[in-house]
Amino acid sequence: MDKLAKCAANYVPLTPLTFIKRAFVVYSNRTSVIYNSVRFTWSQTYERCCRLAYSLRSLNVVKNDVVSVLAPNIPALYEMHFAVLMAGAVLNAINTRLDAKNIATILRHSEAKVFFVDFEYVPIASEALLLLVESLKDNPSGQQAIPLVIVIDDINKPTGVRLGKLEYEQLIHHGNPQYPGEELEDEWDAIALNYTSGTTSDPKGVVYSHRGAFLSTMSLIQGWEMGTEVVYLWSLPIMFHCNGWTFTWGIAARGDTNVCIRNTTANEMYKSISNHKVTHFCCAPIVFNILLEAKPHERCEITSKDLPSFASGKPSGTNCMPRDQQATIKARQGVSILTLADVDVKNVKTMESVPHDGKTMGEIVLRGSSLMKGYLKDEKETAKAFQKEWFLTGDVGVIHSDGYLEIKDRLKDVIISGGENISSVELESILFKHPAILEAAVVAMPHPRWGESPCAFVVLKKTASTTENDIMAYCQKKMPKFMVPKKVEILAKLPKTGTGKVQKVELKKVAKTLQISKNNISSKELHMDQTRYHLDEPRNQENVLAMSRL
Amino acid sequence: MDKLAKCAANYVPLTPLTFIKRAFVVYSNRTSVIYNSVRFTWSQTYERCCRLAYSLRSLNVVKNDVVSVLAPNIPALYEMHFAVLMAGAVLNAINTRLDAKNIATILRHSEAKVFFVDFEYVPIASEALLLLVESLKDNPSGQQAIPLVIVIDDINKPTGVRLGKLEYEQLIHHGNPQYPGEELEDEWDAIALNYTSGTTSDPKGVVYSHRGAFLSTMSLIQGWEMGTEVVYLWSLPIMFHCNGWTFTWGIAARGDTNVCIRNTTANEMYKSISNHKVTHFCCAPIVFNILLEAKPHERCEITSKDLPSFASGKPSGTNCMPRDQQATIKARQGVSILTLADVDVKNVKTMESVPHDGKTMGEIVLRGSSLMKGYLKDEKETAKAFQKEWFLTGDVGVIHSDGYLEIKDRLKDVIISGGENISSVELESILFKHPAILEAAVVAMPHPRWGESPCAFVVLKKTASTTENDIMAYCQKKMPKFMVPKKVEILAKLPKTGTGKVQKVELKKVAKTLQISKNNISSKELHMDQTRYHLDEPRNQENVLAMSRL
Repeated sequence: MDKLAKCAANYVPLTPLTFIKRAFVVYSNRTSVIYNSVRFTWSQTYERCCRLAYSLRSLNVVKNDVVSVLAPNIPALYEMHFAVLMAGAVLNAINTRLDAKNIATILRHSEAKVFFVDFEYVPIASEALLLLVESLKDNPSGQQAIPLVIVIDDINKPTGVRLGKLEYEQLIHHGNPQYPGEELEDEWDAIALNYTSGTTSDPKGVVYSHRGAFLSTMSLIQGWEMGTEVVYLWSLPIMFHCNGWTFTWGIAARGDTNVCIRNTTANEMYKSISNHKVTHFCCAPIVFNILLEAKPHERCEITSKDLPSFASGKPSGTNCMPRDQQATIKARQGVSILTLADVDVKNVKTMESVPHDGKTMGEIVLRGSSLMKGYLKDEKETAKAFQKEWFLTGDVGVIHSDGYLEIKDRLKDVIISGGENISSVELESILFKHPAILEAAVVAMPHPRWGESPCAFVVLKKTASTTENDIMAYCQKKMPKFMVPKKVEILAKLPKTGTGKVQKVELKKVAKTLQISKNNISSKELHMDQTRYHLDEPRNQENVLAMSRL
Repeated sequence: MDKLAKCAANYVPLTPLTFIKRAFVVYSNRTSVIYNSVRFTWSQTYERCCRLAYSLRSLNVVKNDVVSVLAPNIPALYEMHFAVLMAGAVLNAINTRLDAKNIATILRHSEAKVFFVDFEYVPIASEALLLLVESLKDNPSGQQAIPLVIVIDDINKPTGVRLGKLEYEQLIHHGNPQYPGEELEDEWDAIALNYTSGTTSDPKGVVYSHRGAFLSTMSLIQGWEMGTEVVYLWSLPIMFHCNGWTFTWGIAARGDTNVCIRNTTANEMYKSISNHKVTHFCCAPIVFNILLEAKPHERCEITSKDLPSFASGKPSGTNCMPRDQQATIKARQGVSILTLADVDVKNVKTMESVPHDGKTMGEIVLRGSSLMKGYLKDEKETAKAFQKEWFLTGDVGVIHSDGYLEIKDRLKDVIISGGENISSVELESILFKHPAILEAAVVAMPHPRWGESPCAFVVLKKTASTTENDIMAYCQKKMPKFMVPKKVEILAKLPKTGTGKVQKVELKKVAKTLQISKNNISSKELHMDQTRYHLDEPRNQENVLAMSRL
């Protein structure tokens, strides 16, 4: 058995590039991309990718070079998900919501060789480039060059905006449509570099392999039961966000159709759904709200029969579902995806699995070939993430008696009050049910007696009114006493990162200033430790979150 | 990028064992296997596999040992598709239609350490074992031991039939349900050993890897768009046949239900479909015929709504489709599966691709990680199959201008007549359309002028009657003259292999005895070379065969 060696015919590197090459042959005349009045077939998309890859090579892009891009969900960004890899390079799609400083940090850390900029982002990109130039001056010993800038003008209605000489369509035009791309020698080679939002520290550069991207895409197709007749609207996720959860590569694998839109406005979405017979799109609550709150003149009649299939489908993560649907799909959640080899909840000190009792919290750990390669130029953080043969997610969870996993919180957001673990997520989900509350975030506030205690920040609905005391009273009815926030603060809005995550780190700073002094604690509270431990821990059905795709 | 090394957390061997471990957690209480009145859940199936694997280790089965099995589509054979691998061993499921001599050859060649035998196959297995003992005597220098025999009694109605002391359920009983299985270190390790039918020579032992089986299963799920609510009837393929086209592993990956039946009779199939609400099964023409020709008392009412979905679905091979449906799904055929990296049609001497003209024949070549590792103990045949970085399929095909591939024939069955390539398959498909013809096989017959010319063997339908001259006249109307068989022979039945393939090798021997002597050739025929080359080659739409899953 052992004598049968691998050869070039039966051991071929796994890569999403297989999908586009196959789409070129199998789905040649089917529509690949729609963007306003622009339409491409798979044959055209493939040839455009060949051309772009060729041009990148002509611009001295070589293996493992980083090609950065700052653009919304437009055809160019879709094409770069293949073309950059065909040139042997690594795609770095930058979050369009970042500020110039963050963009400069990423360009510097990634040592980007080429920087594609959508015409609308030229001002912020210029600012970022200036900051980069400055920062490189500070470090005269470094050899790092400023990236070559290429503007992506609007393909539908060119604007003429430029930053430097090069433009995207010009590269396509001068490329060679027969260029077959660089041969991939090892499926472990890097395919993409995505930066974390850096809520707590500098953003980290997450590196993915071709193998991992291939397997994640296979899981996506199966998890969402994607057929070959999908018309997919790029509402969310954004392509820069984990490569659009690998939908970028998945749509090519199935020969489906991408409908690109520049902005996720109600009108753009309604028009796209109606005109292009969109069958599927991903629905974060925010997307649903945009559609529901649209004014009459922004709406169009929707006749696509299959439209609701993804919205009420079987996603692997509830983050794309409206809150009130999360509970109903509980049975589908907390389930490992097909290409994930193993999932567990462990006491990370002993690496022992927690009992399947639905109560004992531990850190969620993963193992599988669809995980990242590691953090770029950060051995310390990489080693911290991969410990004892597992990937430590930083999420806290429990395992129920039926073997299903429930995510409770981010490790760093768990509030440890008098030795009791309080899940901030669980507390927030109870607050969400209050009729006047639009958003809620709960963080730890230092407490002289319990070490920490919960502090809640809420944003009210436009038309609603309530008081902090009312909310406190509501909490006292809805949860065990030890969980009740010791402080409730009503804010106009919550501080958020570029990807829309609440910046709990900022709220924790505020909470520190609000902390309760020892003098304000009642004597009753000082002696209730013993009773508290016997309270049943509430388990909120709506709060069951899935393994988020990595 | 290169500094990020693989570790145990992010580089996990790809193996179908992941599917059963996941089914144990995710689909724990769903029905895994139904066989008459026996029913298991995924939790039970997994634990039975753990037990069997443990018992195999106790019987000294170690890594890379071959475990052979001779059984129909029963639960034990299904379980062995996981348990044998969990013990680190390699599964060798033997074709139940083989004779004792062939079985003995396989047991000897594979050096099987354990031999599981279904109770119904005890007589033929005993005969095979005697032959094996004899053959090993002839070779006194060899150290090969006789395999340990374990009978699989009927789990539904035990018969008490034995061959030696051990019985399958006894192994299950004494096994350890908590045994986690041996750790797979390398996804390239062997998973299964399947023997070819050996139409032309001794059967060859095809070895598959865990990686290949994993990827083939992923392709199967996507190609057939298998959901998670499938109730799959094991009508065909048989599990011994390429591991049931990887349906064995695919059903576990989706947590679907296997309905096992011992015999593919009309009554067993109707009963299963009706009682267990079968949603899917594979339909070779023979299966359709059995169902259609069933007598009233053998039938049951079928209410399953989804039943036809596979029959008229999108299979990757037309061999599971009735002949008259093949044409309609042409557009879906000749398409590479998702995990196949590359497919081409080449002139194997120059390794140049044929022009995309739908006419120029070449050998179909493949490349991809779902291909076999090679042939066991046969370096020569392995090297012959993998040449110049491609797998040579031995199939002849063309590529059409739209990039679609059409399989024309087996390489060795192409008839080369006066320099012209005649596809035997194409000619047969024209013969099939004759109202009196049930089966047809066309082979090369030596010809003094043309080198070879076609010779047709046909079997008539029961109620039909026609003559060889009639058929010849029919051919003259339906095809260009050079394709017309020079001889037509009506037979009572065609010689076939254990898997039901026509033995063309035997027919070629017969054709040799029928060959036309030089004296019988008309002078006209001797001078028609030039005109012949200008005839259009007919292209039969019904004859488009797909890439058969490897």
